[in-house]
Amino acid sequence: MFKRLALSLPKRLCNPQIRRSSYHCLVSVDEVDGIRNIVLDDPKTRNSLSMSMMSQLIEEIKRDEDDKDLRVILLESTGPVFSAGHNLKELSPDKSYVEKKSVFDKCHELIKCIIDSPVPVVCKVNGLAAAAGLQLVASCDITICSISSTFSTPGSSFGIFCSTPGIALRVIPRMKSSYMLLTGLPITSDEALRAGLVSKVVPREELDDETEMICNAIKSKSRAVVTLGKKFYYEQLGMGLNEAYKAGSKIMADNLELYDGKEGIKSFIEKRKPVWKDE
Amino acid sequence: MFKRLALSLPKRLCNPQIRRSSYHCLVSVDEVDGIRNIVLDDPKTRNSLSMSMMSQLIEEIKRDEDDKDLRVILLESTGPVFSAGHNLKELSPDKSYVEKKSVFDKCHELIKCIIDSPVPVVCKVNGLAAAAGLQLVASCDITICSISSTFSTPGSSFGIFCSTPGIALRVIPRMKSSYMLLTGLPITSDEALRAGLVSKVVPREELDDETEMICNAIKSKSRAVVTLGKKFYYEQLGMGLNEAYKAGSKIMADNLELYDGKEGIKSFIEKRKPVWKDE
Amino acid sequence: MFKRLALSLPKRLCNPQIRRSSYHCLVSVDEVDGIRNIVLDDPKTRNSLSMSMMSQLIEEIKRDEDDKDLRVILLESTGPVFSAGHNLKELSPDKSYVEKKSVFDKCHELIKCIIDSPVPVVCKVNGLAAAAGLQLVASCDITICSISSTFSTPGSSFGIFCSTPGIALRVIPRMKSSYMLLTGLPITSDEALRAGLVSKVVPREELDDETEMICNAIKSKSRAVVTLGKKFYYEQLGMGLNEAYKAGSKIMADNLELYDGKEGIKSFIEKRKPVWKDE
Repeated sequence: MFKRLALSLPKRLCNPQIRRSSYHCLVSVDEVDGIRNIVLDDPKTRNSLSMSMMSQLIEEIKRDEDDKDLRVILLESTGPVFSAGHNLKELSPDKSYVEKKSVFDKCHELIKCIIDSPVPVVCKVNGLAAAAGLQLVASCDITICSISSTFSTPGSSFGIFCSTPGIALRVIPRMKSSYMLLTGLPITSDEALRAGLVSKVVPREELDDETEMICNAIKSKSRAVVTLGKKFYYEQLGMGLNEAYKAGSKIMADNLELYDGKEGIKSFIEKRKPVWKDE
Repeated sequence: MFKRLALSLPKRLCNPQIRRSSYHCLVSVDEVDGIRNIVLDDPKTRNSLSMSMMSQLIEEIKRDEDDKDLRVILLESTGPVFSAGHNLKELSPDKSYVEKKSVFDKCHELIKCIIDSPVPVVCKVNGLAAAAGLQLVASCDITICSISSTFSTPGSSFGIFCSTPGIALRVIPRMKSSYMLLTGLPITSDEALRAGLVSKVVPREELDDETEMICNAIKSKSRAVVTLGKKFYYEQLGMGLNEAYKAGSKIMADNLELYDGKEGIKSFIEKRKPVWKDE
Repeated sequence: MFKRLALSLPKRLCNPQIRRSSYHCLVSVDEVDGIRNIVLDDPKTRNSLSMSMMSQLIEEIKRDEDDKDLRVILLESTGPVFSAGHNLKELSPDKSYVEKKSVFDKCHELIKCIIDSPVPVVCKVNGLAAAAGLQLVASCDITICSISSTFSTPGSSFGIFCSTPGIALRVIPRMKSSYMLLTGLPITSDEALRAGLVSKVVPREELDDETEMICNAIKSKSRAVVTLGKKFYYEQLGMGLNEAYKAGSKIMADNLELYDGKEGIKSFIEKRKPVWKDE
């Protein structure tokens, strides 16, 4: 059963190592019925993607990622700002080149672990997602946002062009990403939907229900099939069309060799519900 | 003159070889005034892309493809479902790996013959296009649909992730295709238009007229010029920008060496209608 | 201070060499407060991209491009047609293959110099942009248009398929560009916005203000930071995702080594306005 969770931090999910270094948890995490809800919970920095925040996000996304019971990772934030991007204090001139570069390397690691996660990472946005915060949003598998949400890449206003968020913005048309990057001006949720930056836009009061529906749709599938499908989805994006189709034919045939592949087809032919093994 | 055709199967277009193996034709085909109308006509399987159906589509798309009189291929279906995708009975566990893989290889061949066709392939959708049915739709040169049409990739609900339809879905934003693939939920015609999955959406009652207008627009051009243009269009998509422009300059100059290239420019300068040779 | 400029041609910006060969200037240029306004001004040919026009555009875009005071290039036209594309007289059958190919090579040079310009090139469209005229529009960094503007690639109606404009149309969904190229039919400003062909659409009477806002947003940034960001933006588009992020981390760290990178972060931390050096 899926239900909205209080923002509590279950002990089993807290990482003692991170706690020792950062003295407190910046994300709260709960997991019920296969949905791991990771909440950016550092409102006083506008949920900035500090090194600690990114490390904790990586830790929580990767934790027991091969656990059969984990089906969806749901990323959201305490608001009102989803995330304002990197913590600029960690990029100040008194830091070394290596220290500053490590911030962006860590962010790349975060993006990679979302793409590499065996389960879909769904992002629920209510508020502003800016700079690296937008990069995070644009890198999830599915993003849903409320009507009042806005999106921007204002880095150049602070002397640092949003070059790495711009990479994640490849998901939207070139004419829209260059507008955002060069002007720093925000776009509305409707512009974001038109641009394909988000999968869905709904009124704030429908955001939880819509997210629940998406998570439940994913949960109704076989975990093994979704994992195989998600992995190939990102792989084929880097291939030429013919190469992708050749690899795709093999993946489809391999998919049908999985227990759940066979069960799915059999249950369809026998006109009954499938019973997944998820492995 | 273009007119709506009854769904008859002219003898000259029926392929005896396929008829022998499949015992009946799954597509009906007619060709009038340069427009070859290929209709998926197997409503009892919801126009599933069985091996026979795909073979017949390939046969009809390729038939006399270099015939100067053939100008447009118009793909549609008897409905109410445009196509529900592969025939799952051909993917059941009692089939061998090789048999199952051959289904996807055949589908790849179908996609390739659309792209390689010397004439534009226009797809007219009225109803649901799902899984490989959507892959077919997304792989045509131009797609037009009625408002009530819907599109989905529900494979993972049947244990088989829509990995190959996902390749065709590169035509839409990443955030929208991953939503469709991971949830299996359908999108509306308006969402399809926003995503760029279809070229146009019109009310059902305008679908024939709009399609006719598109076909006539294509027919008014030189066949030779359209063939050259379509071929390069797909080639350049796989090139870097500078490489594409270098190749493009040459293609443009080559285009002007065609009889119809010269005739087009001359007629424009002489302020008269061009008279195409189409070769 | 930014203000609308009369279409005058300041002497210092006129290129005597081009004037000698073409006997008159086809573009008028003015530069006030960092905004270089280049106006296609050859309405009797519907602002066709003749060899002279393209040479003059290249000259004006490149002129003193490293001048610290130059911040934005604003491209527009006298109208009513933004640009109808190449001058077909220069492509007539009595020209040699080499002469004709040089037209497309020159156009490639024009596109390249927009992409390579160290400052953003903003395009303001009010009217029809067709064929190579659309290629120009689609190749600017940011494009804004009035509601009544339209866009088309009608080349094949004149025997010359818009193969090179089709390369620039990669910025829009495949299903929309193939529709435009194969039918030659125009699309509206709303369709252009949906497709991502333009960054913004506004009513005619708001076009100047909206453009001014965009130019001012760019001007408020550090020139050095914008130049670095624009350069990497186009570079990363040709890279794989991981490769792009690896290069991106380095670019971000390099950005922070710039004087203005340091100043931007410091001013943010000190809660004051940054004072850019722009170099």
